[in-house]
Amino acid sequence: MKRPISFEIEKGGAGLARAGVIRTPHGGIQTPAFIAVATKATTKGLGSFMYPQMGIQAVIANAYHLYLTPGEKIVGHAGGVGKFMAWDGPTMTDSGGFQVFSLGEGFGKKVSKISVEEQPREADIAVWDEDIATSHGKLAIVDDEGVTFTSHANGSLHRFTPERSIEIQHALGADIIFAFDECTSPAAGREYQKEAMDRTHRWARRSLIAHRQNIDANAQQGLYGIVQGGRFEDLRLESARTLAEMDFDGYGIGGSFSKEDILGILEKVNRELPEEKPRHLLGIGEPEDLFIGVAAGIDTFDCVLPTRNGRNGTVYTFFGKTSIELAEFSEDLRPIDPDCDCFVCKQYSRSYIRHLFKSGEMLAGVLASAHNMRFLTRLAEEIRQSILDGRFDAYKEEFLGRYSS
Amino acid sequence: MKRPISFEIEKGGAGLARAGVIRTPHGGIQTPAFIAVATKATTKGLGSFMYPQMGIQAVIANAYHLYLTPGEKIVGHAGGVGKFMAWDGPTMTDSGGFQVFSLGEGFGKKVSKISVEEQPREADIAVWDEDIATSHGKLAIVDDEGVTFTSHANGSLHRFTPERSIEIQHALGADIIFAFDECTSPAAGREYQKEAMDRTHRWARRSLIAHRQNIDANAQQGLYGIVQGGRFEDLRLESARTLAEMDFDGYGIGGSFSKEDILGILEKVNRELPEEKPRHLLGIGEPEDLFIGVAAGIDTFDCVLPTRNGRNGTVYTFFGKTSIELAEFSEDLRPIDPDCDCFVCKQYSRSYIRHLFKSGEMLAGVLASAHNMRFLTRLAEEIRQSILDGRFDAYKEEFLGRYSS
Repeated sequence: MKRPISFEIEKGGAGLARAGVIRTPHGGIQTPAFIAVATKATTKGLGSFMYPQMGIQAVIANAYHLYLTPGEKIVGHAGGVGKFMAWDGPTMTDSGGFQVFSLGEGFGKKVSKISVEEQPREADIAVWDEDIATSHGKLAIVDDEGVTFTSHANGSLHRFTPERSIEIQHALGADIIFAFDECTSPAAGREYQKEAMDRTHRWARRSLIAHRQNIDANAQQGLYGIVQGGRFEDLRLESARTLAEMDFDGYGIGGSFSKEDILGILEKVNRELPEEKPRHLLGIGEPEDLFIGVAAGIDTFDCVLPTRNGRNGTVYTFFGKTSIELAEFSEDLRPIDPDCDCFVCKQYSRSYIRHLFKSGEMLAGVLASAHNMRFLTRLAEEIRQSILDGRFDAYKEEFLGRYSS
Repeated sequence: MKRPISFEIEKGGAGLARAGVIRTPHGGIQTPAFIAVATKATTKGLGSFMYPQMGIQAVIANAYHLYLTPGEKIVGHAGGVGKFMAWDGPTMTDSGGFQVFSLGEGFGKKVSKISVEEQPREADIAVWDEDIATSHGKLAIVDDEGVTFTSHANGSLHRFTPERSIEIQHALGADIIFAFDECTSPAAGREYQKEAMDRTHRWARRSLIAHRQNIDANAQQGLYGIVQGGRFEDLRLESARTLAEMDFDGYGIGGSFSKEDILGILEKVNRELPEEKPRHLLGIGEPEDLFIGVAAGIDTFDCVLPTRNGRNGTVYTFFGKTSIELAEFSEDLRPIDPDCDCFVCKQYSRSYIRHLFKSGEMLAGVLASAHNMRFLTRLAEEIRQSILDGRFDAYKEEFLGRYSS
C-alpha cells in the first residue's frame, strides 16, 4: 500500500544535514522547514488568510487543546483541522502527551503513578517550566493503560490512552499525527525516566496498531513516533533504537524542557533513526536552534516563540532579537529588519510598530508576530538553499557570526 | 486657486440623497461611503494591509490621540498619518474637540468654564456616555481662547486652541481635517448650549483662518466645519446657517451623544448647508443610520461600532446583529452571512469563529471586525448603487424590512 506520507531526500549536507520534501495529501513540505504552531487551530494573532504572505508551508495543532475546545467531533464535522481553520496546506497534530502532563502545574498539578491520595515519590512530582503552566488543572495520574487528568481550563476530569489520542487525531484529520507519549519532568530521576520511557514505547506500539487498524485514517494520515528519555543520553539512544524498529512514517524528538539537554545529543539520537524517514524536533525553533537541529539531521521544527515574542514586542533581526519598544525606534522609519522580505517590513516602520505597542493596539502583536514568523520560515528556506548549494556550513558560520541570541 | 478637495454629485435621489465622489490628493471617495475609524492610526484589530480586502476607501484618525501618542511630530516625520500607517488612500483627522471634552469623564472629568476651584454650574458639568470614558483624565476647562485639559492616559496638562488643533492637523497631514469645536454634554441646558455654539462658530472662523494662512497645508488639505447645537433644533439650524456662510470644503455634523437627537433633524440641518459641499456625520454609522443619514443628505459616515462589536463577538448580517458565540453556531459550517462577499465569509465558518471566541484567541476579534467593516462598506456601496439606479427608496425599504436592529 502506498503510504500517505513520503519523504524524499534531495541532497545531503555536512554531517546529517539534508534538504528534502515531505509529501502529504495536502501538498509538499520543502525541508528543512519551520512549521507554524496553531495549537487551537489558529496561529496566535495570525489568520490562515495571512499564511501565504508569510511563507508558511504547514501547521501543527494540538490534540489536547482541540479535544477540550471545541471537541474533536466539531473539528471533524468541519472536515478536519485544515478545513476548520481554512488552511488547505499540510497539517500536523501533536498527540497531547506533553500538554496532558505539563499544563496547569503552576496551580499544583502533580504527576502521580497511582492515585491522588498516595504520597507521590519525589521522582513522580513534576516541576515544569513555569512558562508552560497557564491555568488551574491539578492532576495527571499515570497508569500503564493511560493518563487520567484534569483540564487546565476548568478542572474537569478526562482520560487519554494511546488509542484515545489516536482516535481523536483521526477525527482531527491532520496529515501527520503523533504517537501518545509520557512526557516526564526534567527533575525526574533516572529510574522514573526509564520506567516512563518503557511505557512510552509500549504506548508507541499501541498508537501504531490503533492507527494501522483504521483503514481510512491509515490511508490519509501518517504517524510519527516520539523519541523520549529525558536528559539521559543512553535512554535517548535506547528510545531512538527501539522506535526505529517500529514502522512509523517519521519521528518526533520530544519531551525536553531544557533544550540544552536535547540539542547536545540530537545528532547521536538521529543516527539511530532510519535515514529515509523525516524527523521533527518538537517545540524548539529559535534561529540558532535551526542550525544546530539541521546539522544534527532534523527536517522540521515548531516553536511558539515567534508569536509569543511578537506579542511581547520582541522582534527577530539578522543581528539578533530586540525590543521594538525601545525609545531609539520612536522616529526610526526603517522596517524592523531592512533585509527582511516580509509584508510587515515592506510596509511598516519601526516608528509605527513601536507606536502600536505603546498604544496597546492589537495590531502591534499581529505585525510583530507576522514578521517573526516570516523570519523563521525564511531562515529555514535559506538553510535549505545553502544545503542544496553545498554551503550549509559556510552559511551557518556567516549567520551565527552576526546573530547574537 | 484649485482646492485640494472637490466634490462632484453624480446623481441625486429621493429627498436629499445623492451619489457622488469626493476627490482628494490621495484618490477619490465614492459616496455615500463608510469611513473606517483609525483613531490612533490603526483600525482596531485591522491593519492597512487588509483594507483593500474590506473595500475601505478612506480612514479617519484623531488629532487628540495622535497628539498625545506618539505626537504629531513623529507622525509628520513619517510623512503624515497615511504614510505612517502605510495607507495610500484618502485620510481624515477629527480635530480632537470631542475627545478633549469627553475622554476621562468616567474618572471625574468636569467641564468648567473658569477654573477647577469654582463651583461649576449645573449646565457646565458633563455627563458623558460611559462607554466613551476610558481612563483617568480629569478636567477640561473652557475659555474663549481654547481648552485646557488633562490627558486621559496620564493626567498630564495640555491646551488646545483652534489654531493649535489646526497646526497639529497640518503636521498629521490628512487630506481632510476638521475645525476645532466645543463638544457639549447632552445634559447641558439651552443657555449653555447656545453659548458653546457661539464659541464653536468663533473657533470655526479661527480654524479656517489658521488653515488658509498656511499656504502649503491649504494647497494639500481641505477643512470641514462642524455643525453644533446639541439637541436643540433651532440652534442646530442656526449653526448650519452660520457655518454655511464660511468657506469650508465640507461640513461635519458633530457632537451628539444621543443619535436620536440628531437623526431627526438631520435633513433640516443639511438643507441649510451648501448643496455642493460634502457632508460627514461624525461617529454615527450603524446600518439603519446609513439609510436615515443618506436620505437626509449625508455623504460620509464613521463609527467605531463595527470593530467594537467585532471584538465583542457581535456580527452584522442582513437580518440583523447576532452574537457569534451562541451555542447554535457550534457546528454551523455556514459563513457569518451567506450573502456577504468579505474574505472572512469566503473562508471561515460560524463554527470556527465561535471556537476562536470561546478560546479567547486574538484572531476572533480580527475576523469578526473585518466582516463587520466589510458589511458597512458594502452597505454604503449598495446604497450608492441604488441611488445611481434611481431605486434608493425601494432598497431602503427592502433592507430595513428584513434587518432588525
